[in-house]
Amino acid sequence: MQIGVLVNIGNHFDLKASVFQAPRRGIYSFSFHVVKVYNRQTIQVNLMQNDYPVISAFAGDQDVTREAASNGVLLMVEREDRVSLKLERGTLMGGWKYSTFSGFLVFPL
Amino acid sequence: MQIGVLVNIGNHFDLKASVFQAPRRGIYSFSFHVVKVYNRQTIQVNLMQNDYPVISAFAGDQDVTREAASNGVLLMVEREDRVSLKLERGTLMGGWKYSTFSGFLVFPL
Amino acid sequence: MQIGVLVNIGNHFDLKASVFQAPRRGIYSFSFHVVKVYNRQTIQVNLMQNDYPVISAFAGDQDVTREAASNGVLLMVEREDRVSLKLERGTLMGGWKYSTFSGFLVFPL
Repeated sequence: MQIGVLVNIGNHFDLKASVFQAPRRGIYSFSFHVVKVYNRQTIQVNLMQNDYPVISAFAGDQDVTREAASNGVLLMVEREDRVSLKLERGTLMGGWKYSTFSGFLVFPL
Repeated sequence: MQIGVLVNIGNHFDLKASVFQAPRRGIYSFSFHVVKVYNRQTIQVNLMQNDYPVISAFAGDQDVTREAASNGVLLMVEREDRVSLKLERGTLMGGWKYSTFSGFLVFPL
Repeated sequence: MQIGVLVNIGNHFDLKASVFQAPRRGIYSFSFHVVKVYNRQTIQVNLMQNDYPVISAFAGDQDVTREAASNGVLLMVEREDRVSLKLERGTLMGGWKYSTFSGFLVFPL
């Protein structure tokens, strides 16, 4: 997975594993837009908190060049929880180009 | 409408009515992703502030299993304003599964 | 481009140019949903920081009445940086109706 990181204040996003690890307990906002380039498959993307799927998004159109599976959520996160994206179904043959994954602390608890 | 609430700090989201009531005046960020499961209809989802539609989102593809009507906005909200989603057009025969609705205070006024 | 501004605290969004100019250095959250009304073209929307594209979004379905090109991002923004949307490809014959563009300061630096 090729990624570019635009903002990584605090350095809590592990580039190699593509996992965000929370520096402290609090409410975080996460959102993602995973772009599928033309292929025949439906994709399902899960936002994972530790090993559990929290929300899902889908992109399934067969006739469209680029389509995004998007969703966003507020999450109560414990210190050292890991948050990441998982491609639950389908493949991203064209890579993750144009995809984004963002998160920030809304307020600490 | 079946919902699961992931985060409800301050308990200002009324589960029964699915309405958020603002505890104080300020700028809030709201976003939603309402997922339509395969059906023949176009859906239009409105974000309502009290009884007024503020923004709309659409999902209209007839050939795609799951598609989301998504949008997001910053709103100036008065104390006790109610913010909710309304299905303005179409039906959600498959229910609200995978749909999300999130809001948080960006800063108080 | 016809726009309505729901929130413009600090008055840092220039309505005429549709450009946000940052009052101070910090991490900002930006998101947009640009709605294409039925036409035959694929649109590509870029989020521009000064004169550079940061992220892109696409809407390409030919058979759907309204479809949104959506994305969002956290950006490190310097004081007086300009952030705006640019229609990189395609046209919006139906105007920008139902489109949104939102940004706020997550924390100052």
